[in-house]
Amino acid sequence: MQMDSTVEPLYSSGSTVSSRRGRALPARLAASALATEGGVMSNEAFHAWFEERQRTHALQVSRIPLGDLRGWNFAPGTGNLRHDSGRFFSVEGLRVRSDYGPVREWCQPIIHQPEIGVLGIAVREIDGVLHCLMQAKPEPGNLNGVQLSPTVQATKSNYTRVHGGSAVPYMDCFIDPDPSRVLADVLQSEQGSWFFRKRNRNMVVEVGPEVEAGEDFCWVTLGQLGGLLRHPDLVNMDARTVLSCIPDWRAGSSTRNAGLHSDTEIRSWITTRRARHEITAEPWPLREAAGWHRSDEAISHESGLFFSIVAVDVSSHRREVPAWSQPLLEPHGLGIAALLVKRIGGVSHALLSARVEPGFLDVVELGPTVQCTPESYDHLPSGQRPRYLDVVLDRRPERTLFDAVLSEEGGRFQHARSRYLIIEVDEDFPTEAPEDFRWVTLPQVNELLKYSHHLNVQARTLVAGMRALP
Amino acid sequence: MQMDSTVEPLYSSGSTVSSRRGRALPARLAASALATEGGVMSNEAFHAWFEERQRTHALQVSRIPLGDLRGWNFAPGTGNLRHDSGRFFSVEGLRVRSDYGPVREWCQPIIHQPEIGVLGIAVREIDGVLHCLMQAKPEPGNLNGVQLSPTVQATKSNYTRVHGGSAVPYMDCFIDPDPSRVLADVLQSEQGSWFFRKRNRNMVVEVGPEVEAGEDFCWVTLGQLGGLLRHPDLVNMDARTVLSCIPDWRAGSSTRNAGLHSDTEIRSWITTRRARHEITAEPWPLREAAGWHRSDEAISHESGLFFSIVAVDVSSHRREVPAWSQPLLEPHGLGIAALLVKRIGGVSHALLSARVEPGFLDVVELGPTVQCTPESYDHLPSGQRPRYLDVVLDRRPERTLFDAVLSEEGGRFQHARSRYLIIEVDEDFPTEAPEDFRWVTLPQVNELLKYSHHLNVQARTLVAGMRALP
Repeated sequence: MQMDSTVEPLYSSGSTVSSRRGRALPARLAASALATEGGVMSNEAFHAWFEERQRTHALQVSRIPLGDLRGWNFAPGTGNLRHDSGRFFSVEGLRVRSDYGPVREWCQPIIHQPEIGVLGIAVREIDGVLHCLMQAKPEPGNLNGVQLSPTVQATKSNYTRVHGGSAVPYMDCFIDPDPSRVLADVLQSEQGSWFFRKRNRNMVVEVGPEVEAGEDFCWVTLGQLGGLLRHPDLVNMDARTVLSCIPDWRAGSSTRNAGLHSDTEIRSWITTRRARHEITAEPWPLREAAGWHRSDEAISHESGLFFSIVAVDVSSHRREVPAWSQPLLEPHGLGIAALLVKRIGGVSHALLSARVEPGFLDVVELGPTVQCTPESYDHLPSGQRPRYLDVVLDRRPERTLFDAVLSEEGGRFQHARSRYLIIEVDEDFPTEAPEDFRWVTLPQVNELLKYSHHLNVQARTLVAGMRALP
Repeated sequence: MQMDSTVEPLYSSGSTVSSRRGRALPARLAASALATEGGVMSNEAFHAWFEERQRTHALQVSRIPLGDLRGWNFAPGTGNLRHDSGRFFSVEGLRVRSDYGPVREWCQPIIHQPEIGVLGIAVREIDGVLHCLMQAKPEPGNLNGVQLSPTVQATKSNYTRVHGGSAVPYMDCFIDPDPSRVLADVLQSEQGSWFFRKRNRNMVVEVGPEVEAGEDFCWVTLGQLGGLLRHPDLVNMDARTVLSCIPDWRAGSSTRNAGLHSDTEIRSWITTRRARHEITAEPWPLREAAGWHRSDEAISHESGLFFSIVAVDVSSHRREVPAWSQPLLEPHGLGIAALLVKRIGGVSHALLSARVEPGFLDVVELGPTVQCTPESYDHLPSGQRPRYLDVVLDRRPERTLFDAVLSEEGGRFQHARSRYLIIEVDEDFPTEAPEDFRWVTLPQVNELLKYSHHLNVQARTLVAGMRALP
């Protein structure tokens, strides 16, 4: 790790982006993470600013019958729900067949959005400390109106302005950045149970002093973001996933090669899980999705479980924002996404699970130790409940390192929330893990996050949480 | 790099598999690469043994009308060609639409084989030197009958023996190996123009002295394999791709971070290429694939270009091998897969291209500098020919580091061959590259090969060739 040398532009190291003063990236990120008050806006000032945004920018959202959606139609043949323009997204059917788990075949609605959007955070050195440019952004499905978002959160339709509309602020920073100023740039998946192969481009780009914060934007340090992450429903899902893709500033430490399993072993385990499962997930007419029924109000499963597709009308106080209506996916119940962590040989390890979700591009991604909606299992004997759920439910407060209810994507989901937990287990907790679980170090997680298809979006929120631990 | 210390089993490094005598893996692989004669079989003995296999094991293959295929049928609705069992593979239609290249929409036949097979090479230390266990294996589409294959080359149907048949020899070595003995284990793609999202598990596993070579198997060093790679049609495609996934024994050298572009820049470039292109490739009835026509003899394109689907009858001298018939994909013309290499700042770089092939799982993989069938472009002005093809055609013999005509997969393709070239360009050759090309170092290629979806199968053959250069 080059901590104090300027790097030749032609032969720069793979992991250092240096400032003009020559400090290497990990040291600069660490300094930002230590700055818990921020150089631009105190935490008190932040909350005052943010509450003001919430008051003025929250959208008016009202539930409407599916038939009242303007600009959306149920395609005659398939019953799929699509926008008249053929863009944005659609709600289609999916038929899943696998050789895995208690249920081997099912149909479900799923959101299709084939275009790849950009989730970008601009970072800038202010008074020698890196700050992230964050946006106070309203989304119709947000429980509390406005949440803290990346600098840019734009679908390709948005930023190429195929449908007119105004330019996406700060999009220039991400369209064709100086390659040496790119800290992270990787396609990452989103909820594989709700989205069909959706990925967004997670980008972090360093910008110069010419970039200033507009009215709905603020500069905050990594340390401030770490604190805000513990507030309920404040830092949105898109911000969390981009934060997780920032190179880990602690990865250069002596723990690099001190894992329970070697990097080769971890990759081989992922390959094993992918090769073992045969899963086909194919488009299927929504009209013919067995078990799912469409009423005036919603498309829901006959069991009452899982989620519904509902419709909302959206408007804003602000004149420049036109009113619109759209479908949203409304989950039934509060999710849990919990990570067990344990020191093994003095090194912190997280217990990740190899999850099969039908919308994943590559069958398996690594998820939290436990990811489920607990109430769906209430009526089942404990042997049929998700592995380690009991450990999570029986957690001791003093070993619970992180505990926050956070929202999922408010542009597509209605009040979708999960309780994110990081729980430290005792030294005598078994190090042996079932075949779908492995203890992985944070530097190993950091390596996997450089490549697509490895950590699911819930796990990425927990990685952001891990980095924010004191 | 730990060169001479034994690694603690619990805290082993990410990149070292050590022998009982404690030498680290890169040193052991380097020693095998230097052993150009081999400790078990001299090169002369190898060729004698191999010619004997070719004489006795080559299959009898005769072209038959499509309608004479036994056990195969054209599905009534779609015209797709499938095995009666529903297993093995099928030839289906594909409709491709993209926003890229001169042709934006087309239909074509493509091979579907959703199950993930195993391509595995067992390695063993013999007299202190690592040897690879290779098989002399006949395939119906091989021009010359028998080629040198990995230890195991098996579809899931093969090795799980769903259709009866005998056990796949050495399969045990790869089913549940000791994780610390796995040198490589990664899913890799095959021809994205001919296969729909096909991947195989590329594995290299170290075994103990209890594993011995059966009649059709031999132990050879990496140095011997490097020499054999230059023989036409000898080392088969599956062997070449597995060899490319072995960790590069030179990656620990001082060139690790001396690339023209940082690792982050290379990954960001790949992300850019993937995000830029929207490509949908969807199953389509073969009967309705525009421009493709089925005669008694073949399914071919009206232009005479690309490839045909043909049928063969296969039998063997050997009693234990039953006769069968099957379709094969027959390419029209000899392909070229050429890599330009250049020393930049004293470090060897290869010019890779970001290729869109419709059967790729993730839109783009990196391919050779030039990959095409030149005769398809003979009638076009030079401006419409593939970038850098002229450089390849005008190459000077003394700068041509590798030049061999090698076969593609003989189990699915009929006499499919490509001329593989590695050509060194002069110091004054432009270092600036068009947006679909980048100069990448070998250690960077090695990193990308640890993860799926990065290098296409032609590029992987050339990586194996690069490692075999003197």
